[in-house]
Amino acid sequence: MATLRGKLVVAQSGGPTPVFNNSACGVIQEALKHDDVFDGVYGAVSGVMGILHEHLIDLRKEKPATIEGLRKTPATALGTCRRKLNEQDMERILAVFKAHDIRYFFYNGGNDSMDTANKINQMATAANYDMRVFGIPKTVDNDLVETDHCPGFGSAARFMALSTRDAGRDTESGALTTTPVCVMEAMGRDAGWLTASAAIGRQDEKDAPHLIYLPEVPFTIEKFLNDVQQVYDRLKFVVIAASEGIRTPDGNLLMKSSSLDAFGHVQLGGVGDFLAKLVTEKLKIKARANIAGTIQRSLISASSPIDLEEAYLVGQMGVKYALEGHSGYMVSLVRESDAPYRCITGLAPLDKVANAAKSIPADMIAPNGTDMNDNFLRYVTPLVGELSVSNYVRLEKHAVAKLLGAYLR
Amino acid sequence: MATLRGKLVVAQSGGPTPVFNNSACGVIQEALKHDDVFDGVYGAVSGVMGILHEHLIDLRKEKPATIEGLRKTPATALGTCRRKLNEQDMERILAVFKAHDIRYFFYNGGNDSMDTANKINQMATAANYDMRVFGIPKTVDNDLVETDHCPGFGSAARFMALSTRDAGRDTESGALTTTPVCVMEAMGRDAGWLTASAAIGRQDEKDAPHLIYLPEVPFTIEKFLNDVQQVYDRLKFVVIAASEGIRTPDGNLLMKSSSLDAFGHVQLGGVGDFLAKLVTEKLKIKARANIAGTIQRSLISASSPIDLEEAYLVGQMGVKYALEGHSGYMVSLVRESDAPYRCITGLAPLDKVANAAKSIPADMIAPNGTDMNDNFLRYVTPLVGELSVSNYVRLEKHAVAKLLGAYLR
Repeated sequence: MATLRGKLVVAQSGGPTPVFNNSACGVIQEALKHDDVFDGVYGAVSGVMGILHEHLIDLRKEKPATIEGLRKTPATALGTCRRKLNEQDMERILAVFKAHDIRYFFYNGGNDSMDTANKINQMATAANYDMRVFGIPKTVDNDLVETDHCPGFGSAARFMALSTRDAGRDTESGALTTTPVCVMEAMGRDAGWLTASAAIGRQDEKDAPHLIYLPEVPFTIEKFLNDVQQVYDRLKFVVIAASEGIRTPDGNLLMKSSSLDAFGHVQLGGVGDFLAKLVTEKLKIKARANIAGTIQRSLISASSPIDLEEAYLVGQMGVKYALEGHSGYMVSLVRESDAPYRCITGLAPLDKVANAAKSIPADMIAPNGTDMNDNFLRYVTPLVGELSVSNYVRLEKHAVAKLLGAYLR
Repeated sequence: MATLRGKLVVAQSGGPTPVFNNSACGVIQEALKHDDVFDGVYGAVSGVMGILHEHLIDLRKEKPATIEGLRKTPATALGTCRRKLNEQDMERILAVFKAHDIRYFFYNGGNDSMDTANKINQMATAANYDMRVFGIPKTVDNDLVETDHCPGFGSAARFMALSTRDAGRDTESGALTTTPVCVMEAMGRDAGWLTASAAIGRQDEKDAPHLIYLPEVPFTIEKFLNDVQQVYDRLKFVVIAASEGIRTPDGNLLMKSSSLDAFGHVQLGGVGDFLAKLVTEKLKIKARANIAGTIQRSLISASSPIDLEEAYLVGQMGVKYALEGHSGYMVSLVRESDAPYRCITGLAPLDKVANAAKSIPADMIAPNGTDMNDNFLRYVTPLVGELSVSNYVRLEKHAVAKLLGAYLR
């Protein structure tokens, strides 16, 4: 097969992650090795918006140390967007590709971005425009299909595990005297992977979270209040991990909002405060909510080493696969074993990935619907890295004999 | 001076911190070295509530590895409380001390706890009950007087610096296409130390935060909206650090709540969401808020090494000072130099510390009132430890020449 010469463009799309730039770095550093193939290595600013508006930058002109520094810089150095392409956009993209002789396109993002990459690939094929289109997976939601997991997820899951565990100790500290219930709200529109990851840092039944509410399990206020009361009666404090995407039995989001994004997705929020208020008002137990918001998808100091490494790998491998002549794929992660953890890359057809979403399978959820089981822990533990969970202690609290009568004030 | 033999009690009070247990560990490990003085080493469960209700535990019966493990366990192993003592409580405490021959009392907490320790010391003196009372400082708010800074603050400040910096990169990523304004809400009822610490991770004017709102600087909605618009016009994105305790020019809290805690303090919250809504509605620029809540005061994986060390030190030194015969003091931190950072402990009279609060001095705040200056950075930088701020990069973005006309869709 003759080498396809031309320019390469990399773009980033959707919500940031701490390891997002690692994938861009993987694409760029691999591309820079192949001057014989790539006449130019470009970045599109703000995802496909940068293609539409010809807002392209020449990555060969960046200092090598800057490109290398992307590995340690969270979020997106090129900028991101959420844009659903229409027919006219598709024609424009083809015109831009032709004008600049762009023959390689790497789109790094989540479900919607894979849909965009798929459409661009189909358009190029239909137009007989010879090019290689690749999707590079990225999402803290971990809901892309045809891949074992998604770069970005391991780090966000790590933050969720660490912060829930410590919020558990914080809540336990004030259990008898201040605010005994705490809700940790997690991102995840359609799938509860991130919410469920709160469970990773537990060692015993006192460790948080005590209740987990996922989009995959229908939610009713009645059962929720009953669940909370039961845990409270047993432990005197309750830490709850709740997805922003929890749904009522009819499939509607518990918290609806009037604002829709460009893909028609409901913009969420408010689950944490809503649940805390419910507990405070209905059960008369004081509750609060922690809404880490974008911190959970950006805090690189809580990133997972494996995640950083794999994010780079999927970018690098995308270029290698494209050089082999492949096109129309997302680079997937294929797990070979849990312990020791081994994972390689593979090729997932974009048309299978586009717009599908992977929920947590039922066999990873405990029968009560509010906890995860060992199947989930086996799956997720290697992705988040060592949490040093065994460092924490609890006092045995050997009581000193009382010498006075009860104090009733 | 004859040695005062008797039992020792340590208790923890107020909001948790990641290094709180280090101070308890310092007290306990030092106390366990002095069997010749201490007939018992007790912990009170849930602060003074444990004294009132004789809920005491024998810390000598704990495994040494458990006591050592307190150094790596966030929040409070003994439990905490918020209780303002009345006259009857004081009599009960004295009765409990006498019944158990408790002669050493170490109260680890913030402003209110120092008030409690001071009252207990005065009561014992007035009753001619020979004992040693010490306050061990702790507060993420950093607002205790008579000490350079407070254990717990450095770690919370570190989380605030790291999370704001990364939320800045996250917001910048979507500046042109999604949500260009982000509010980081920080704890701090009376003082803005924690909010101000968001500024530590900046290297240039694009780095977050761009605006800082402290309780020390009167807040008006009009100036706020003007500030935000100006930064937005310049950078196209804005990250705001805002204290939960910001006040209007008449000195009232911006966000009031009907719930008061036991000390009559207003329970705060809602500043972040309120400001984000203001920006969205009044400036028509989409804004969101991150409310880390208890995560900022509990996440031990973001703790500062210096803070961990000093928290232990103030506990340990409290016992040493008491053994020297001192009583009625809080162990203070006395800074000897900024660079290299050197700090020793000292003795601060409890009656000077009780119920006073240290605001950020005017000479640490920039003239515009929405930024910190070098005096602040010199003060705070050694307390949070290395942030690896120089690792982050921004692309220079060398534009590729456009070949087509503008795309107006």
